[in-house]
Amino acid sequence: MLLGEGPLSRVELARRTGLSQTAVTKAARPLLADGYLYELPPERTAPGAGRPVSPLAVSADREFFAGVKISADTLYGTVCDLRAAMRTSARRPLGERTPAAVCALLVELVEELLDSAPEFRDRTRHLGIAVSGDVDRPGGTVRYSVLPGWRDVPLAATVAVATGLHVTVENDVKALTAAEHWFGEGIGTDDFALVTIGAGIGSGIVVNGRLLAGAHGVAGELGHIAVDPAGPRCHCGAVGCVEAIASSGAVRDAVRAVTGRPELEFADVTALARGGDPAAREAFARAGRAIGVGIATLVNLVGPERVVVSGEGLDTYDLFGVHIRDAYAATAFGAAAACPLTLRPLAWEEWARGGAVAGIQALFP
Amino acid sequence: MLLGEGPLSRVELARRTGLSQTAVTKAARPLLADGYLYELPPERTAPGAGRPVSPLAVSADREFFAGVKISADTLYGTVCDLRAAMRTSARRPLGERTPAAVCALLVELVEELLDSAPEFRDRTRHLGIAVSGDVDRPGGTVRYSVLPGWRDVPLAATVAVATGLHVTVENDVKALTAAEHWFGEGIGTDDFALVTIGAGIGSGIVVNGRLLAGAHGVAGELGHIAVDPAGPRCHCGAVGCVEAIASSGAVRDAVRAVTGRPELEFADVTALARGGDPAAREAFARAGRAIGVGIATLVNLVGPERVVVSGEGLDTYDLFGVHIRDAYAATAFGAAAACPLTLRPLAWEEWARGGAVAGIQALFP
Repeated sequence: MLLGEGPLSRVELARRTGLSQTAVTKAARPLLADGYLYELPPERTAPGAGRPVSPLAVSADREFFAGVKISADTLYGTVCDLRAAMRTSARRPLGERTPAAVCALLVELVEELLDSAPEFRDRTRHLGIAVSGDVDRPGGTVRYSVLPGWRDVPLAATVAVATGLHVTVENDVKALTAAEHWFGEGIGTDDFALVTIGAGIGSGIVVNGRLLAGAHGVAGELGHIAVDPAGPRCHCGAVGCVEAIASSGAVRDAVRAVTGRPELEFADVTALARGGDPAAREAFARAGRAIGVGIATLVNLVGPERVVVSGEGLDTYDLFGVHIRDAYAATAFGAAAACPLTLRPLAWEEWARGGAVAGIQALFP
Repeated sequence: MLLGEGPLSRVELARRTGLSQTAVTKAARPLLADGYLYELPPERTAPGAGRPVSPLAVSADREFFAGVKISADTLYGTVCDLRAAMRTSARRPLGERTPAAVCALLVELVEELLDSAPEFRDRTRHLGIAVSGDVDRPGGTVRYSVLPGWRDVPLAATVAVATGLHVTVENDVKALTAAEHWFGEGIGTDDFALVTIGAGIGSGIVVNGRLLAGAHGVAGELGHIAVDPAGPRCHCGAVGCVEAIASSGAVRDAVRAVTGRPELEFADVTALARGGDPAAREAFARAGRAIGVGIATLVNLVGPERVVVSGEGLDTYDLFGVHIRDAYAATAFGAAAACPLTLRPLAWEEWARGGAVAGIQALFP
């Protein structure tokens, strides 16, 4: 609570958490002693309100956290402070996608980031890596990720040996959701969801203040909701998944197939759609409908207070936004339609920040 | 915990809840004084284990709870004790479906149940009513229910005035899920889901030990996941909902349409399918696929430890079970496929018991 909402007095912390003031004071003591917290100068809460109180604040520079996002073609890295403010960032284009090659480049990127300031080198113990797909966070393993094309890669152990850091590996959308929950749109909300659209499609779901992890390690897989039995086969093996219809690659492939122009890239398809090409416009419309149905499905099942839509796919929101909203409105059940959708553009570096937040949460679970 | 898992010693309760032993002792005191709990004779936990302890047990007869399920054509009623054991039950065929007519019959049924034993009359203060659809539990209102065909019916207030009881109105699937969570398959599980199939299709989802209610009052609407854009229009207005394909009425309608025999009832369709009629078999297959995709969607998004499948639709499990399982296996994402499906046949009266459990939870929230 102090990380996202501080500074706060012990009294206010007790009120918001439901803990006793004694418990708050006891919990704060070692954190003050270790320098993670400090006391602000005493202030009176109101004129004549008795003894002035010293609010507790987070020492943002007490420790730093490295974060890396592995995307389809690039490594994004950052160093954040304890309040998840990005203090530096860098990126590296990916060459070979083998685990060995990516790990070597990732270690190089992290070392460079840590070397960029003496305090980063001295006070960074945790690295969080955000990667798409099915991630075993407790085991530190990427079980399956289509974007680098990996199966059962023991990423945390490999990178920990090379860097000497505590390494947390997290599904990228869950990491981003945790970052939004603790430090962004989710502050103060117990039930919300983040949906990301773009090269991959996913979601992170917070229920009663906690990110769903899934009893079997899978949750929030909005990209793998099957919305159309007549749809294309997905890389996951199922038919008609949202991601198989609405990822940027799926939209590109649909237009390639209809036009018979295999040379088209996603940028070309976007340009065609903006120029009014019916095939390209229909591919975006179909993608928008699949995303809208997917979000409505999440809302009908889980019932969040609000849904934040993000990801690089927002760049083409002009082409499918109306279809997302129409399909969402048509499919949300009853009062669920009152759940608002909010757009939240994010830079790629913020995915790396999600990794760093996974590191912060590894220190303060 | 004592309701579902007792008797338990204070030490064991403290261990399982994470509360201090002092807190447990303090919480138990008024419940002992009011007769909700009693102490079993002291027993030694192990030979030579020191002072014998007196486990706490629930006085099941201390208070009774009436429960009613409103189905499409029948009212089912029960009286349960404090441990949700059904002590009596009765049913009434529904005539007119107007709120006034149903409320009058419901009050008559409850009065008859309470009159069946003096202790029921003396010690029943709570009535829970389970009804399908979009229910505003805090407001006591049925916002939308297709089976009686209601919109915005202030059911709790009306019945409370007529009976003098505290009345809780709950979505029937949520009520059944709460009953399973506290007193059935869900005991000891923090993350599970109950899926019901039959005249309606729905689900109740428990996350971190709590039943999802939905920030906007809607959650677990598995029947209103849209799985096929080429599917029939649902009564909710959306296209291709699981319920529009896989409810018993939807299967019947599909076979009527294909065979051109509008006189067929669901029992006829079932008999046709069992006799090998291809149209009837295909309608069940399609229903099974829709249910399987719906369950996989829930599992991919929420990640329960296990899923219990129930409802009167299990009577035709021979006709679509294999399709449910195949579609589930094909659509569950990665490790989510490890989530087991368990079949749990339930009598109609157990839905009324779900209502009674809503009453128990109103007393002990």
